[in-house]
Amino acid sequence: MRQAGRSLPEYREARASTTMLEACLDPDLAAEITCQPVRRHGVDAAIFFSDIVVPLALAGVDVTIEPGVGPVFAHPVRTVADVAALTEAGPPDAAALEPVAAGVRAAVALLGETPLIGFAGAPFTLAAYLAQGRASRDHLAARRLMHTDPAAWSALMDFAAAVSAAFLVAQIRAGAVAVQLFDSWVGSLRESDYRAHVLPASAAVLAAAKAEGVPTVHFGTGTGELLTALRDAGADVVGVDHRVTLDAAVGRLGGTTPVQGNIDPALLAAPWPVLEAHVRDVVDRGRAAPGHVVNLGHGVPPDADPDVLTRIVRLVHSL
Amino acid sequence: MRQAGRSLPEYREARASTTMLEACLDPDLAAEITCQPVRRHGVDAAIFFSDIVVPLALAGVDVTIEPGVGPVFAHPVRTVADVAALTEAGPPDAAALEPVAAGVRAAVALLGETPLIGFAGAPFTLAAYLAQGRASRDHLAARRLMHTDPAAWSALMDFAAAVSAAFLVAQIRAGAVAVQLFDSWVGSLRESDYRAHVLPASAAVLAAAKAEGVPTVHFGTGTGELLTALRDAGADVVGVDHRVTLDAAVGRLGGTTPVQGNIDPALLAAPWPVLEAHVRDVVDRGRAAPGHVVNLGHGVPPDADPDVLTRIVRLVHSL
Repeated sequence: MRQAGRSLPEYREARASTTMLEACLDPDLAAEITCQPVRRHGVDAAIFFSDIVVPLALAGVDVTIEPGVGPVFAHPVRTVADVAALTEAGPPDAAALEPVAAGVRAAVALLGETPLIGFAGAPFTLAAYLAQGRASRDHLAARRLMHTDPAAWSALMDFAAAVSAAFLVAQIRAGAVAVQLFDSWVGSLRESDYRAHVLPASAAVLAAAKAEGVPTVHFGTGTGELLTALRDAGADVVGVDHRVTLDAAVGRLGGTTPVQGNIDPALLAAPWPVLEAHVRDVVDRGRAAPGHVVNLGHGVPPDADPDVLTRIVRLVHSL
Repeated sequence: MRQAGRSLPEYREARASTTMLEACLDPDLAAEITCQPVRRHGVDAAIFFSDIVVPLALAGVDVTIEPGVGPVFAHPVRTVADVAALTEAGPPDAAALEPVAAGVRAAVALLGETPLIGFAGAPFTLAAYLAQGRASRDHLAARRLMHTDPAAWSALMDFAAAVSAAFLVAQIRAGAVAVQLFDSWVGSLRESDYRAHVLPASAAVLAAAKAEGVPTVHFGTGTGELLTALRDAGADVVGVDHRVTLDAAVGRLGGTTPVQGNIDPALLAAPWPVLEAHVRDVVDRGRAAPGHVVNLGHGVPPDADPDVLTRIVRLVHSL
């Protein structure tokens, strides 16, 4: 469960005196936070605690993560000159990524038999932040750049793909046995734009991870129309958010692609019988797939009750 | 083109010394702003200048519209008691809605032969604002209330539907000859939730408008999966945002429902040949429908070049 940590009191305590970027770059702290949901909930795998902008920060990009706001970039990327300035230094190398690798090694040591999943933002979502300078609803700045200056867009996507791939490869070489590529905002694109202007970059990242010998999960929200395109980018497992039922998603994928999801975070606060029925329904519909990584369809809300998450894990393990 | 005004210098001048709510409730000013895009661009119809929270403010709900933020409610609605407190006074009556009606009459007088389209927010989008207290990305507070307390949700939706219907009926009786119901945020729902928990309220609003003898347009974003459900709520015309091509949308709708949209606002800044090709493609694909209201797929960005909008209108009129 992505972002499960932030609903935990032990997470808030661990993070109390650090900024988000400091926490991500402190190997022991990142490892501890990575393990907290496993200890608490008994989930079958951990996902590495980090943020999608960490490799950008390690590449020298001027970015902060503001509480309640998210990443804020000092210099939004709008022109070919902005892209050139951004990409001059190139993606972070292994030395720059050492705090991440050290965190992964520490997490793997703490986790023992529990597998660790690596984590990265996909090129479009990175580019959406870089172009807008912060979170946005329709990602208009990125989508605008895509059409107004395709060459600048292409260069930006190449850079974002190199950053994302370097981040994943560092995690894999440090011990992650699978990776998840998060394209949280790709649902703002129509399929033709995705295939023409985004898929090649995502495919490059997924190929880099697969070349290291690990399976890949590709996640987005609002991507009901893009499921086959996300698979065609090379993902082994495709995430499905709460908007589409899993059996419908499996049908669109031709019945041959494992899926992840799609418990609705909005139901975490519902009376248990309502939530239980929903979880059972999700698991039942997921049986149509050749594999189903049971998970929420999106991140855990910060005010979720941790005991409810534990109860879901127990229920799923009993099915 | 919804929100075309905000890209115009004459709009910014007219609004210079007023808050958004003041402007909406000043009949002469609202009428003037309503007419500005018609004068500037030569579009075939005007849409009444207002805000979806206007009828809530006129019902006595404590709401402000903050620049750059949008509506902010003093008391987010989270419990059945909150709903009861909210709905105690009921929807605004004709006397409360008189500033709106006066604005519509003044706009109709200014517009002459050009038809005026009435405007309202749909129940789910109103409820999403009311539950969260302000804009939000996934409308989690509303979707949570829907499942945690269906009775409170149902009461909230009944209230929102009554408010929305009263707002539209006041505009129709003052001279609007069609209406558009904006469910901007309904794309956050899966279809089964929409049909069970939202459609009846939207249907009540659309039925109230149709009982006054006018056609209805129903708009949302991210609604590719919901097009038939939006039609089933009783809309005569269904809006399609930029995420789905119009021929695909028409196919989903069975080829019998007129559509609106779906020019991508992200392309307004593109070189003219790129934008022109996109507009021609949208118009071509729209020919599959029994009718197509050519429009953007979403609101006009505030930094759009007004001359580009005028050029689009001329192009479409030439096709």
